[in-house]
Amino acid sequence: MNEIPTVFWLVPIASVVALSMAWYFFSKMMQAEEGTQRMIEIAEHVRKGAMAYLKQQYKVVFYVFVALAILFAFMAYVLKVQNPWVPFAFLTGGLFSGLSGFFGMKTATYASARTANAARKGLNEGLRIAFRSGAVMGLVVVGLGLLDIALWFLILNHCYRGDNMALITITTTMLTFGMGASTQALFARVGGGIYTKAADVGADLVGKVEANIPEDDPRNPATIADNVGDNVGDVAGMGADLYESYCGSILSTAALGATAFAMNGDMQLKAVIAPMIIAAVGIFLSLIGIFLVKTKEGATMKDLLHSLGLGTNISAVLIAIATFIILYLLGIENWLGVSFSVISGLCAGVIIGQATEYYTSQSYKPTQKISEASQTGSATVIIKGVGTGMISTCIPVVTICFAIMLSYLFANGFDLSMSAGSMSRGLYGIGIAAVGMLSTLGITLATDAYGPIADNAGGNAEMSELGEEVRHRTDALDALGNTTAATGKGFAIGSAALTALALLASYVEEIKIAMVRAAGEGQQFLDTAGNIFNPNNASITDFMNFFQVNLMNPKVLVGAFIGAMAAFLFCGLTMGAVGRAAQSMVEEVRRQFQEIKGILEGKATPDYSRCVEISTRGAQREMIIPSVMAIVIPIIVGIVLGVAGVLGLLVGGLSAGFTLAVFMANAGGAWDNAKKMVEEGHFGGKGSACHKATIVGDTVGDPFKDTSGPSLNILIKLMSMVSIVMAGLTVACM
Amino acid sequence: MNEIPTVFWLVPIASVVALSMAWYFFSKMMQAEEGTQRMIEIAEHVRKGAMAYLKQQYKVVFYVFVALAILFAFMAYVLKVQNPWVPFAFLTGGLFSGLSGFFGMKTATYASARTANAARKGLNEGLRIAFRSGAVMGLVVVGLGLLDIALWFLILNHCYRGDNMALITITTTMLTFGMGASTQALFARVGGGIYTKAADVGADLVGKVEANIPEDDPRNPATIADNVGDNVGDVAGMGADLYESYCGSILSTAALGATAFAMNGDMQLKAVIAPMIIAAVGIFLSLIGIFLVKTKEGATMKDLLHSLGLGTNISAVLIAIATFIILYLLGIENWLGVSFSVISGLCAGVIIGQATEYYTSQSYKPTQKISEASQTGSATVIIKGVGTGMISTCIPVVTICFAIMLSYLFANGFDLSMSAGSMSRGLYGIGIAAVGMLSTLGITLATDAYGPIADNAGGNAEMSELGEEVRHRTDALDALGNTTAATGKGFAIGSAALTALALLASYVEEIKIAMVRAAGEGQQFLDTAGNIFNPNNASITDFMNFFQVNLMNPKVLVGAFIGAMAAFLFCGLTMGAVGRAAQSMVEEVRRQFQEIKGILEGKATPDYSRCVEISTRGAQREMIIPSVMAIVIPIIVGIVLGVAGVLGLLVGGLSAGFTLAVFMANAGGAWDNAKKMVEEGHFGGKGSACHKATIVGDTVGDPFKDTSGPSLNILIKLMSMVSIVMAGLTVACM
Repeated sequence: MNEIPTVFWLVPIASVVALSMAWYFFSKMMQAEEGTQRMIEIAEHVRKGAMAYLKQQYKVVFYVFVALAILFAFMAYVLKVQNPWVPFAFLTGGLFSGLSGFFGMKTATYASARTANAARKGLNEGLRIAFRSGAVMGLVVVGLGLLDIALWFLILNHCYRGDNMALITITTTMLTFGMGASTQALFARVGGGIYTKAADVGADLVGKVEANIPEDDPRNPATIADNVGDNVGDVAGMGADLYESYCGSILSTAALGATAFAMNGDMQLKAVIAPMIIAAVGIFLSLIGIFLVKTKEGATMKDLLHSLGLGTNISAVLIAIATFIILYLLGIENWLGVSFSVISGLCAGVIIGQATEYYTSQSYKPTQKISEASQTGSATVIIKGVGTGMISTCIPVVTICFAIMLSYLFANGFDLSMSAGSMSRGLYGIGIAAVGMLSTLGITLATDAYGPIADNAGGNAEMSELGEEVRHRTDALDALGNTTAATGKGFAIGSAALTALALLASYVEEIKIAMVRAAGEGQQFLDTAGNIFNPNNASITDFMNFFQVNLMNPKVLVGAFIGAMAAFLFCGLTMGAVGRAAQSMVEEVRRQFQEIKGILEGKATPDYSRCVEISTRGAQREMIIPSVMAIVIPIIVGIVLGVAGVLGLLVGGLSAGFTLAVFMANAGGAWDNAKKMVEEGHFGGKGSACHKATIVGDTVGDPFKDTSGPSLNILIKLMSMVSIVMAGLTVACM
Repeated sequence: MNEIPTVFWLVPIASVVALSMAWYFFSKMMQAEEGTQRMIEIAEHVRKGAMAYLKQQYKVVFYVFVALAILFAFMAYVLKVQNPWVPFAFLTGGLFSGLSGFFGMKTATYASARTANAARKGLNEGLRIAFRSGAVMGLVVVGLGLLDIALWFLILNHCYRGDNMALITITTTMLTFGMGASTQALFARVGGGIYTKAADVGADLVGKVEANIPEDDPRNPATIADNVGDNVGDVAGMGADLYESYCGSILSTAALGATAFAMNGDMQLKAVIAPMIIAAVGIFLSLIGIFLVKTKEGATMKDLLHSLGLGTNISAVLIAIATFIILYLLGIENWLGVSFSVISGLCAGVIIGQATEYYTSQSYKPTQKISEASQTGSATVIIKGVGTGMISTCIPVVTICFAIMLSYLFANGFDLSMSAGSMSRGLYGIGIAAVGMLSTLGITLATDAYGPIADNAGGNAEMSELGEEVRHRTDALDALGNTTAATGKGFAIGSAALTALALLASYVEEIKIAMVRAAGEGQQFLDTAGNIFNPNNASITDFMNFFQVNLMNPKVLVGAFIGAMAAFLFCGLTMGAVGRAAQSMVEEVRRQFQEIKGILEGKATPDYSRCVEISTRGAQREMIIPSVMAIVIPIIVGIVLGVAGVLGLLVGGLSAGFTLAVFMANAGGAWDNAKKMVEEGHFGGKGSACHKATIVGDTVGDPFKDTSGPSLNILIKLMSMVSIVMAGLTVACM
């Protein structure tokens, strides 16, 4: 047991504060009026559909978790190739991640009608409800995340002896709860993503294109399913996703800190808790930011934009300053350098956010050109969008490359010698840069999550026939969110890449631990010269040489090929899933238009629940294969190709997957906004041939940006997590 | 000087035989009648347009070559970091590759009217002319390739002393003529690809979709440009491309052979010439195959298919058998194992070809499902196509992984120790597997190249108003080609991946040579411990350790990110280029329809040449940036990140680029055939809403499969080639 420094208690305190504030915002929101009878009814429909879906999804995920937990228990207690805490840590990670999604969605479904009702009074009132509800989600995610981290750290620290190896074991064991979170997140993103896009594409194709009725029209049978989709995909999915990113970055950095300072007990503990402290302080700074988002009565659109921007920017600047102070006070070795690593990460996040904005907003050339291409039909819209998306990978990738090099070099004092010490400190710098980017997740997630709430409020307004003005206001809120969310998105994308790199390093450590354990059980590791290999004393070069991890080894190359292919295959499977699920939705909507007389005249009510059911079933069925694939591939590669193959797999998957994810997200975003630009009156406006052409682009872009693209970020990290947790098995198969 | 064994003379002899037979087939074809006055005129138009384009393209490429040659001369004679032969070798590679394209295209443009004319008599007559003209192209490519190889080998062997180092220097110097070929090929593929798709997309969008006139209608001003495009893209581009693949695989294998058997002078020479001998024998076997493709008068479609399949399959089987005999007679160490490496490659090629066929032919489910998706509009066609394309990467990548492992293990006797000797022999096995796949290029290219000839013959028939029947026959010939070309395509894709791997290994060798040269000039190489590093005695592990090429080095990871991004960026740029060039074409065609009265009634002749000019200018302008990018990126990475960065770049580029290339090629192919399926009468047939939806898919697929996809294979290899040639500079910057 290590003596826990007092400052550590900031972590559980911050977590409790976050959860209390979330509760406070939630109850304040619940006090607001929900509006007319019709509004309440519709919100009820959506809420029920969303909860029914979540229940169904959690049921499927539950079986997967039980199966995996049994596997881990078998590995831990029978094969003895796994730490005994792993099955439990894995389960809590999944549970807490699921809770984040659940609470976020519960809030969102209660908030939508209230936001619509408030928007009847004014823009400002709408913003307040929607933003505070988004903040509930943000605070729940960071609160639950830090709670889980603090609890496990306290438990494990209590159980292990206080030597240098202990903290390495503790932190790598905690990584397995990251795997629980990743698994839950992947299912949530994939399932939710398929659900929402099947409903959306289905509703649009028949409603907008064939029957010529507007978006969210109550005559469209798929319209409730579409609104449910926004909740289960954009809210619950995003919540689980960012819970995973947040915990993943903190846990992997803690594990890297334990390795980097293994020779220095005091410093080691500080390095392990540093990312947790930064995250804890980030919560308080996020709260400051959240309270800064308020406007006077009768605020203009510009005021609102300013106010939102102020909140996020001030939080980001404050955390940058706070990092220097925290690391200095903690007394981290080379605290100035490590702080600059965090700054590199923050700058990278801002640049990626700006680049994303440039390539996807209708204020800039790339998206305008896509709109323009609609004059020559939908084919050129698609070609232009694919081209733009691919080109848009350049700035984010180059920026990430700079962030990697800089955060590495700052943290190890510009030492390129690759000695064991300098390298692990450099990697710690990469990890902590990711933590910096995500530390103000409380507020950045709020600006991200309130978009779908505003969107749903718009749906509610439309179906309740509240009139044009309310809809305009909710649309404005949604657009506002899109603009301010850029920075948050940049942080999310950038931190995913950096965290994945940190996990790569953790994998190497975990293999070493597994070897020590196996050596204790009598397994012998001989190198090619026949000498016994001692993982404890091995430098990174020794390690790589022992496992023949070198870029000429065909196993590494085969691994890299499979990694790149896995990213494409995963996207292909999810795209196909959306296509199939959308197809059944289209058929159902067409059937209802034909069979239920009077729907289109508004005289008969469509059978909404049947559409909800179809989406639910479709998503459940289709999410299994791609998600299981992500878990199975690294296991097989580990068994067949060993450590060399797994490292190739992770590097290939990371480089190709990250680039592919940026491409898909940006192409999708650009198509969406190109359509909005036409709808605003350019190139013929709504209903013109150009509009139809851009709708095709938007429809194609939907699964790009909301299903396949965001799931890829999780896939990359989950593959690393699985490799880490399976390290014991890989070593046993050697 | 090494004593050249008599059997080597087979190589120049085979080359002369190939060129003579090409000449013979060409003159036979020229004796056939060209048809009516109108047919001759149209062929003349297309020929002139194509030649004008090629002249223009070669002019631009000439400047690039002069600039690069000056750079190499500067490096060789002033900086002295480069072999003095490099500038010359580079130039001949470019020249010969250009000649392959030129002769192939010349033949194709003479053959199209003659094929159309022959098709007036019957299917069989059409096949004979078209296939023999395709064979001209195939034979010119292999003939010129072996000629260049034989000449340079004789010259360099004459100039260097006959020690073990000599053959390594000779073979790596010869690799630079591979870089000349790659550079030429990239420009040809990118420029030709942009040209052909701009014309095609432009012609289709206005002609088919807006004005509702059929394909190749003489009233369409872009129709000549479209036919010119088939020649400059599909014929000249493909010729330069496969010239590069063919030479690249032989040269890199020769270089690997020189390293693998460096300790054994006699065996070393044998290992160097073995790939050349296999290729030479392949020429004779291809000729047998070509002569087997003949049918009786009044042959049915089935007979023709059987006859074409017979030719390619017999050649493939014969080369498999011949390999065992050649390697046995040459007395190559472990000849049986190396022969099995070749067999692994051949099997992989067949499997990849079959998988390509499965995912892109309308006889199978995936493409049928894309057709089916047209019932819900063009958006679902695109989603389904993208999904299918991504899923289709699985089998080729897994197959290539097996081919890599098996050809490696067969060649080094299942030795996984990664000792220097075992590894280089394994890599030699990977290289020679690629040579086996391309050795019968004479016939596989014939089946590939005759497709565009038949297509052009169809265009000629349409414009000359020869009637439905002739068009049907040329369409049948084209379809026939598509079916039999699958194996050839599988070989081309698979060999590209294997060759790229072989080039990776050659890069390591070239760096060693550059270090030896630099050490001779006084540069010292100290490792981290301060000891002098001797590249001559270094095992691959020593080498990787010295350069810190390990998967945890941020330089390697950054390299991998940039490599993956480069593949996407390159595709994005070429897609964008096609979009822009097509846009100007669309505007021009619309202008002509408006301004020249009576075009649509067939009373006025459109201004074909203006469209040809627009395509030419567009392609010239747009091909520069992506092509130069491919050359510049590895140079910059080499200078900034050193050897570790370059190896990361090449692995990242190869794994992501290969997967991306397969995705784009297959998605494009599937969309094309999904459209054909509708045109054959499914889902409403020609003119239906479903047809329009599939046309959108086909139009998007055009740049996927004919511009970006095929260029990627060259990009991957060119990046390796550039790295190899720039090795001296990288070492000097250390």
